[in-house]
This record gives sequence, structure tokens and C-alpha cells, in this order.
Amino acid sequence: MLCGMQAHDGPLTRLRRSHEQSVLDLLRRHGPLSRAELGTHSGLSRTTLYDIVAGLVENGVVVAATPRAQVRRRGRPVEKLSLDPHAGEAVGIDFARRAVHVSALNVAHEMVGSASEAHPPGLTWSQRADIAERLLASLGGPSGGSSPAGAAAGRGPRRGTLRLGSLSAIGVGVVGPVTDPGTADAPVDGTDGADGLAGVLRERFGVPVLLDNNTRLAALAEAVWGAARDGGDVLYLRLSHGVGGGLVVGGSLHRGTDGMSGEFGHITVDPEGAPCECGGTGCLETVASLDAVLRRHRAAGGDAGDFAEFLAAAAAGDRCAHAVLEQAGTEVGTVLAAVCNAVGPGVIVLGGELAEAGSALTEPVERALHAHVMPRARDRVQVRRAALGEAGSALGGIALVLHESPLLSRYPQPVTEEPA
Amino acid sequence: MLCGMQAHDGPLTRLRRSHEQSVLDLLRRHGPLSRAELGTHSGLSRTTLYDIVAGLVENGVVVAATPRAQVRRRGRPVEKLSLDPHAGEAVGIDFARRAVHVSALNVAHEMVGSASEAHPPGLTWSQRADIAERLLASLGGPSGGSSPAGAAAGRGPRRGTLRLGSLSAIGVGVVGPVTDPGTADAPVDGTDGADGLAGVLRERFGVPVLLDNNTRLAALAEAVWGAARDGGDVLYLRLSHGVGGGLVVGGSLHRGTDGMSGEFGHITVDPEGAPCECGGTGCLETVASLDAVLRRHRAAGGDAGDFAEFLAAAAAGDRCAHAVLEQAGTEVGTVLAAVCNAVGPGVIVLGGELAEAGSALTEPVERALHAHVMPRARDRVQVRRAALGEAGSALGGIALVLHESPLLSRYPQPVTEEPA
Repeated sequence: MLCGMQAHDGPLTRLRRSHEQSVLDLLRRHGPLSRAELGTHSGLSRTTLYDIVAGLVENGVVVAATPRAQVRRRGRPVEKLSLDPHAGEAVGIDFARRAVHVSALNVAHEMVGSASEAHPPGLTWSQRADIAERLLASLGGPSGGSSPAGAAAGRGPRRGTLRLGSLSAIGVGVVGPVTDPGTADAPVDGTDGADGLAGVLRERFGVPVLLDNNTRLAALAEAVWGAARDGGDVLYLRLSHGVGGGLVVGGSLHRGTDGMSGEFGHITVDPEGAPCECGGTGCLETVASLDAVLRRHRAAGGDAGDFAEFLAAAAAGDRCAHAVLEQAGTEVGTVLAAVCNAVGPGVIVLGGELAEAGSALTEPVERALHAHVMPRARDRVQVRRAALGEAGSALGGIALVLHESPLLSRYPQPVTEEPA
Repeated sequence: MLCGMQAHDGPLTRLRRSHEQSVLDLLRRHGPLSRAELGTHSGLSRTTLYDIVAGLVENGVVVAATPRAQVRRRGRPVEKLSLDPHAGEAVGIDFARRAVHVSALNVAHEMVGSASEAHPPGLTWSQRADIAERLLASLGGPSGGSSPAGAAAGRGPRRGTLRLGSLSAIGVGVVGPVTDPGTADAPVDGTDGADGLAGVLRERFGVPVLLDNNTRLAALAEAVWGAARDGGDVLYLRLSHGVGGGLVVGGSLHRGTDGMSGEFGHITVDPEGAPCECGGTGCLETVASLDAVLRRHRAAGGDAGDFAEFLAAAAAGDRCAHAVLEQAGTEVGTVLAAVCNAVGPGVIVLGGELAEAGSALTEPVERALHAHVMPRARDRVQVRRAALGEAGSALGGIALVLHESPLLSRYPQPVTEEPA
């Protein structure tokens, strides 16, 4: 356990963790250092420093080695301390509707890699946790410092084994609102009894679990490392099996009352429309989810068997697919314009499989946005494609665990129960 | 000049201002204090303290007096220092479409009072500044510590004269977006040449001028002192000659990119609707502004000469007025639901003259909100009437000048040019 994630930390425990973090930060910044160098940089007393270092070595997070070139003639050789790239620091898991995505970060703050697996709907949390565990086991380390974008692109993993036992916490994205990311509330569709997903994961991994809505985590990752990393207010919209998103406003990731923000998919586009899973009628999700788009395509005579075939048809110039994308894009752009007038983002990031249709979708989105956003705001908002792909939410889980981005300075602090 | 509002402050000037603020804060909290008591509480050296106090007395902000009961037998009598309740600290002015509203706060942080005057459309900034100056001159002091809500209700002013020469700054609300509240940009409808409103006011009052959108300032005031002062995320909507609003999200007043947020009045409700002043089509403002409501009432056979007559007709049970309010309320509630799904506020505050129609408006608003907000969020948002009335934006101007609310901790710092 490296980070201060536990409830009821005493001041001495907190102080110790703060010292641990200082030592780890110095090793991240400078590379290998001797105890004497660490003492100079950290300002810690010899006794405190030796105690902190001993704990980190015992946990397998820091390794001590004597570089051959530096063995001195007299006295003991000077040991250099360095971070063990096999020690995990944070794992992000995205339990999407029909897939599990994982990403891992080592203690040197290098991305170890990302991995994904699709699954049929209706699995229990235990079955989905099995998939996550298998994917994490498949991730080796170290990656040699790949960036989150590199991890998202599926580069690495390289040979080696990530030791999950040294993890500080797991950041987990789930479908639907999460009341408090700092508590281990199970999302409402959990099927494993009262303790739900968080309980299952705590038992598996023995570390604190932070839950949040998975599209909000994708918004966080795009703002920290992805398409909107140049800052400002951001509206992220994911068009996938569900339609949702997240907002970065005034330099902070926004949660809303009880986590009820970013529900762009449940803005009404047609009061006379189809019933929606949320209990409402004619929500954006009923016309712009992958299933809705496929349904419209078939109704118009298209014969795509699944969404990949639909995308292939669109790419091949299928007129019917383009008409369906035009219609969905217009509805998406109209909703985005309403949110823009209310919130005033500088960047809109479009993610999810539907965005892979490219300009056949984004052009009608931009036309409708332009038509309905306040004329003065037209030149103030840019539409961009998401950069982190399907790994976005898992990477956002890691960002949530690190809690280092200024975007999270106002976000609820991750304080969870000590795992059993 | 009391507050640190000028650009190019050196570190010594800033230090001196910080000492001045400490002394003023102590006098606000403790009431009259001797120099020795101020020295104990402030921790300032005798030399520094005497210098700071001398400056404050010279500026007329602090007065020195010897209480009769405390004249000692031997030596010099002990002077007590206190704040002069005639010294102004901040003025808020709201240049609404067809009225000027002012509020003033003295150096003891007591509200001196508020005053308003309606005017015909089309006045120049100079003419509107004349009205503001006349209204401010009509405000006496001290009020004996009335609350902002009391000031909004028009209680006071009591006899006396507020000395505007001791003001730190003026916070000004204007119609339309303001790119940067810290600069003296003229709003686009200024008619007095390039220097516009801020220049006119700086010349009149000789103090820095902070500009912002007036509905956003009303949102700030409602969140600091009014209907939403119990905190949380707030959506403020003003239904007046124009329709606009403001958002408090994550504990901060939200500006949006280039100040383009809270433009709820320009969310499209009918793509085939009437042209709007903003350049768009079928915006909420084209159906829910006072003029739009009056127009619909007349089209349905109503004979109200102005909006006050319309309100009177509605209060008397006029069916036609109620049908018009039902229609406008439904459109307002539908737009609010979309913004709620995106932003997730806990409180919606309805302000402006249309909200004075009471339940004939708020009931259809709540019905439409309930019908279109995500079912899970229905019980998480409360609709309330604004508490600060027409003084809201002027009070928000004062809150902007004080820059003390945690709601403003992420708001652009007021740094303006030194007045000529």
C-alpha cells in the first residue's frame, strides 16, 4: 500500500506516506540515487530516511543495487536505490456493457500496457472480474516508459511480470451513475449480492477500489492525456452501446449532484420517440447508440449484420449508411449545441465506435452544432475525435487513483475502506 | 484604494495591502480596538502597525476616538480605532436592458442599501451612468448592518452619506457575454466609443471597474446570499426582457470559454421558430421572454398593456394568461431538463419578472422538468424562486469585488488597470 487511500489515517501514518511519496518522486525524477543523495534532496533525517527506504525495499517497490563502476576502494560500496519497474502502482479497469478493458501503470509512472476482451451481455461481476484478472495477468512490464497514448494504441507489453501485490489502488469505470467515487457502492446492475463489484474486486486484489462512471473516466483521460490535453473546458461525448459523457469545467472534472452529470444520452430529442432504458422517452440514446443506428440502417434496407459491417458499408460509400449517419449526426449536434450554450466548452471530444465513422458522422454533427449554438460561440468550440480509443476509461481509472491532475483538485478525495 | 486590484503591484505594495486587510478584518470582527490591542491580534510590529493605521485614518476608512469612560487618570487617554460606516468599500451596478440597479457595501461589510430606476431603451452609457450616480447619491449610510436580503427588499437606507471616494472597486453587470471580468472591455452594445462603459465609469468614480454578465452575477448573489446559499451545484435562470442564467458547478461560479456559459435563453426550442436577437432561430428567449409572453397573450385575445397588467390578469385567474404561462413553463422546463441531464445541479433558481407569476409558471416548469430529466435525477433537483429580486445582479457585482466567496476561488482574479 503506497498511497494514502485508507480511511482513518492517523497523522503519523499520513506523514509516513508523504515521506514515502517524496522518496518515490525523487527516484522517478532523478533515476537511481544513493541513500546520501536521497537524504540531500529530500531533507529527511538519516534515521527517517533509512526507515522509509527499508519499508519500500521490503514491499518490493524499491530495489537496492551496487553499480559495478562505483565500487570504491575502501569501505562499503555505495548502494544505489531505484524503482522496481515490475512493481505496479495503479490499475484501471473499465467494465463496459459488453467488454472489459484494463490498463496498468508501474511505480515509475510508466504505462505497462492496455488490454481488452469483448464478452456477451449478462455476465455476473465475478465473471467479469475473471476477465479483468486474466487481462491483467497478460500485461508484462516494464514497457520502457510508454505514454498513455502508446498504451491505448496497444503498443507493448514487453516481457516481464507486473507485481499487482504492490498496487496502491484500482480505479474502476462502470456503466451508469456512481453516487460517490470514494465509497465502494455497487452499481445498481450488480448481480453478486449487496457487496457487488467493489467487494468482488477488493477480495481479488486486496487493495482499495475507486468506482466512477466509465464515460466520465474517459473524459478525464482525454483531458489529461488525450485529445483535450491542451486544457480548457471540455465536453466529452461517447457514442457506443450507450450514449454518455463527461464535462471538465473551470479546470475540474465535474461530477454533479450525486454523480448525475454528463448524461447527454438522456437528453430528450423527440418527446414522441421510443422508450429509453432510463425510463424516459425519445432520449438521444434511442437514436444515436450503436443498436439504434443499426436498427435505422436495417429499416432503410441496409443489411449490416453488426456494427463493424455497418462501418465497412459506410466506408464503402453505402448511401443508406450515410443517410443514417447524417440523421444521427444532426441529432447529436443539436444536443451538443444546447449543452454548449449552457456550459461553454472550448473543445468537444467525440468518442465511441460511432465516431469511427469519421467525417460521415462529424460533418453533420458540426453542421447542426453550428446551426444551433449561439452565433457568438460558433468559433469558440472545436470538435475533435477521441485519441485514447477503447482504453480511455481504464486510463481514466488510473488518473483517478493517482489523483495528481489539477483536474481532480476539487474532485472528492479517494478515501475508501481498508481492504480486509 | 483598499484592495489589491491594480495591475503591476510590487511585492511591498501587496504586503502593505495585506496588512491593511488584516487590520480592517480585525476591526470588522472585534469592533473598536486600541492600537495596543490591534498589535496583539495582528502580530504586526509597532512601527508597521502605526504606519498602516495612519494611512487608513488619512483615507477616512478608520476613525480614532477616545471613549469617555476610558480616559485614564494618568498619561494620555487610550484611543480606540473603528471603521467609519460612511466609508464605502464596494458598489455593485446592474445595467439591465431597461433599468439600472445599484447596491453599496461599506467598509464594515454592512449593506448600505439598494436602489433601482427604470429607463427607456436606447440610452447611451453616459446617460445610464448618470442614473447610477444619482441612485448611489440617494443611498445613505450606515444601515446598521442590514443583510443583502434586507438590502434587496429595499429596507434602509438610513440617514448619512456614503463616501464613494473610499471605494475599492465597482462590480458591474451588463447584458450579454463579457470575455474577461478582469479587463475593462466594453460590452458590444456600448455606444460611447472604444473605451465604452468601463471607461465612463472609471472616469466618474476613479476606481477599478469589474465587468461581468449580469445574469451570471445574479446567479453568484443567489448562491452566496440568496435562494441557493445552502450550497451545492446551482442552475440560475432569469426570465426577463432577456432570458439567461448562470451555473455554480463543483463549488465554483462557472464562466465557460470566453464567458460563453449560462446562455440558456439561446438553446433552440423550435428549429422552425421565430428569429432571435442572437442571430439564431427558435431560441427559448423567443418564447419565454416578457415580450414573447405578452405577444402570445395578445395573440390569444388577451388585452394586457404591459407585463404588470399581464401578471395582474394571471393573478385574477385569466384563463388565457394561464394558458400562455403553461406553454412557456413547459418550454422552460424542457430546456432545464436538458441542462440538468448535462450538468446535474441540486438546485434550480428561477428569477426575473416572469417568475413572479408564481405557481402558474413553476408548476408547468416542474412537470416538464420531471418528464424530461433522467428518472434517477428527478428527486435530486429542487426548483426555487429567486430570493434577491431585482437587486440580485448588483449584489453579485459586490460579491465579485469582494472576491471572498469560495465560489470565486477559481474565478479569474480581478486585476484591472489603475484608473487614470
